[in-house]
Amino acid sequence: MLTPKEQMRIICKGVHQCVNEAELLAKLEKSYNQEEPLIIKLGLDPSAPDIHLGHAVVLRKIRQMQELGHQAVIIIGDFTGKIGDPTGKSKGRVALSDEKVKENALTYCEQIFKILDKEKTIVRFNSEWLSKLNFEDVIRLAATSTVARMMERDDFQNRYKNGVPIGIHEFFYPLMQAYDSVEIKADIELGGTDQTFNILMGRTLQKSMGIDQQIALFMPILEGLDGVEKMSKSLGNYIGVSEPAEVMFKKVMEVPDNLIIRYYELATDEHPDEIDRVKAELLNRANPRDIKFQLAKIITGLYHEEEEVQSAISYYDMAFSKKTIPDDIPILLLDLEKDTVNDSIPGLIELGYIKSKSEFIRLIRQGGIQINGEKMNEDEINNVLFNGDVMKIGKKRFVKINK
Amino acid sequence: MLTPKEQMRIICKGVHQCVNEAELLAKLEKSYNQEEPLIIKLGLDPSAPDIHLGHAVVLRKIRQMQELGHQAVIIIGDFTGKIGDPTGKSKGRVALSDEKVKENALTYCEQIFKILDKEKTIVRFNSEWLSKLNFEDVIRLAATSTVARMMERDDFQNRYKNGVPIGIHEFFYPLMQAYDSVEIKADIELGGTDQTFNILMGRTLQKSMGIDQQIALFMPILEGLDGVEKMSKSLGNYIGVSEPAEVMFKKVMEVPDNLIIRYYELATDEHPDEIDRVKAELLNRANPRDIKFQLAKIITGLYHEEEEVQSAISYYDMAFSKKTIPDDIPILLLDLEKDTVNDSIPGLIELGYIKSKSEFIRLIRQGGIQINGEKMNEDEINNVLFNGDVMKIGKKRFVKINK
Repeated sequence: MLTPKEQMRIICKGVHQCVNEAELLAKLEKSYNQEEPLIIKLGLDPSAPDIHLGHAVVLRKIRQMQELGHQAVIIIGDFTGKIGDPTGKSKGRVALSDEKVKENALTYCEQIFKILDKEKTIVRFNSEWLSKLNFEDVIRLAATSTVARMMERDDFQNRYKNGVPIGIHEFFYPLMQAYDSVEIKADIELGGTDQTFNILMGRTLQKSMGIDQQIALFMPILEGLDGVEKMSKSLGNYIGVSEPAEVMFKKVMEVPDNLIIRYYELATDEHPDEIDRVKAELLNRANPRDIKFQLAKIITGLYHEEEEVQSAISYYDMAFSKKTIPDDIPILLLDLEKDTVNDSIPGLIELGYIKSKSEFIRLIRQGGIQINGEKMNEDEINNVLFNGDVMKIGKKRFVKINK
Repeated sequence: MLTPKEQMRIICKGVHQCVNEAELLAKLEKSYNQEEPLIIKLGLDPSAPDIHLGHAVVLRKIRQMQELGHQAVIIIGDFTGKIGDPTGKSKGRVALSDEKVKENALTYCEQIFKILDKEKTIVRFNSEWLSKLNFEDVIRLAATSTVARMMERDDFQNRYKNGVPIGIHEFFYPLMQAYDSVEIKADIELGGTDQTFNILMGRTLQKSMGIDQQIALFMPILEGLDGVEKMSKSLGNYIGVSEPAEVMFKKVMEVPDNLIIRYYELATDEHPDEIDRVKAELLNRANPRDIKFQLAKIITGLYHEEEEVQSAISYYDMAFSKKTIPDDIPILLLDLEKDTVNDSIPGLIELGYIKSKSEFIRLIRQGGIQINGEKMNEDEINNVLFNGDVMKIGKKRFVKINK
């Protein structure tokens, strides 16, 4: 087990703010001496969509702490999900059925376990304790905070100033999140910088209930591929953790040079020493493209098998870089008059990549055929192929069209 | 049964504001046609002390509506009482034990039934329904109001502006009171003008829950005997409903002349026609003292038996007015050197008013001995009596000291 100071260095890598470091060190020392793992909390909203590298920033940090021996507790906020927004004004807070909440939670867990260590993770639903609170408990909970304190939260303050209604129930969302910390006796809670208010509320509530205060670890918001905006699906500047290796590799290669170190810090589990080495390399005018290539290999490797990473690299080289095509990549020649995807089938059979047209169709349906890195649909079978187009068949086989 | 319009006249007598009259008339018409009494709600805080005429303003109005055939529902706010103020900052909101709450409620009911008709009154404790609400119910309740709406309440607004903390739980007190109205399907809720916000919240909540909105009847705050400040025990300007007939009579005689009509309207059940007659009398320069004498007789008669009222009048005449003492009131002569209360005992035995010293002591302990209208304690037995002092023994016997 690493010493508390060595652990601190890894935990604080890339962190935006830690409230506070002295307390964190004390917790790590106690944990080290008593051989008791710390409880790392992360709250998740089950209405969130597919996870991308932006969401993964907090998850990777938790994974790093798991590697240090600590215990993660993921709280699925199903209680809030079930209630929704009773005023019906917030689209994000439509009441969900128990089934829908569980379904969302499952999809979510599937994704987070691409990052977290399942053995060191407990998943809990907060309805387990929140649904048991009665009015008296709620009054006691509410009494731990004040209107002025709630109004410190930027969004509340702005809405109040601008006359946009704030429902009284909305004050409970931070309190519920804080109560979760009390319930599981969290030692550390992680979140983005947009969670500052809610996570610090957990510290306040723990204190007022006479238990040890959690450490708040705020992670920066990761910029997307455009290098400016927050990574988000709707802006299209994201890298999804479930995306195929080739797509992921290619997208990392599109990260702006000035964000290479940031991605190293926030999207990989590399040791601070290694990141220092990369920084030095960049300063010594190494070609950023070569370093980014390493970064792409590391990130892709976090979410895919080694074999897939290798094939993604080959594919990238072939499709997007100027390198000559390796000898072992077959070149499919197509007749000029008959130049659709459909027309390539006999050649593919001849190469031994598929056995029949029906197998090819089945592969398309399973998403197993890509043209220039994009999955093709069945109705695109009569699309024209151009000279230089790269077709991927299954996981590892490629052909380049030569007309 | 009086017609709806006749009922309106009585109900609206002395009322500060009715929200709103058209709806009230409609409710009265429906009640009249269907021969269904209206449900009149009054919420009471069981931590309040002895009831005085200021508190009685709302109770008298309810009594008048009971005489019109309607049903009173008194809500004892025991749920709030049991919780208290969890922050411990409000002295008025110390958590009370179940027993203490019940004890307070009993004392309270004893007093209110000096005014209300027991047959047409139902007493309910709001813990009956409030303690059953779970977190989800509370969230739904909270969602019916907004921060901006709560901030319309003067005390909240002032505290917020002045940086005095407002606990989130305090927002629930108006919501609880409103929920009580929903629960009992109140047709009319009464309160002082200081209850405007809370009672209108009841209307809002009923509406948002799809039930008929209650009418809000705001009664004025009654000025005390100083004619300026609100009647209150701590200011000493009050008339308690449990005070002896003599004290009550004397205190009403101290009401400033300009408040005679106000006391007629707010502290008696006189018909509006009768009050109009008194107003005319006053305008015709009748001696206000004579009219006040009538008022004192009416008010004392509302809380005491006829016999006691008569004895209070005799006592008042004797002790506080310049009239000669009636022949049938004995004058006790005391030796100048032995002039304490104790020394008067032999004379009292001689008059046949008491049988022994021990009976006299027992009467003192029971509060049955008064000197100049004030109950005496056992340790005052050696106090000096002065010429002209009036001693009351039991309910109807008096002596005037003549030294």
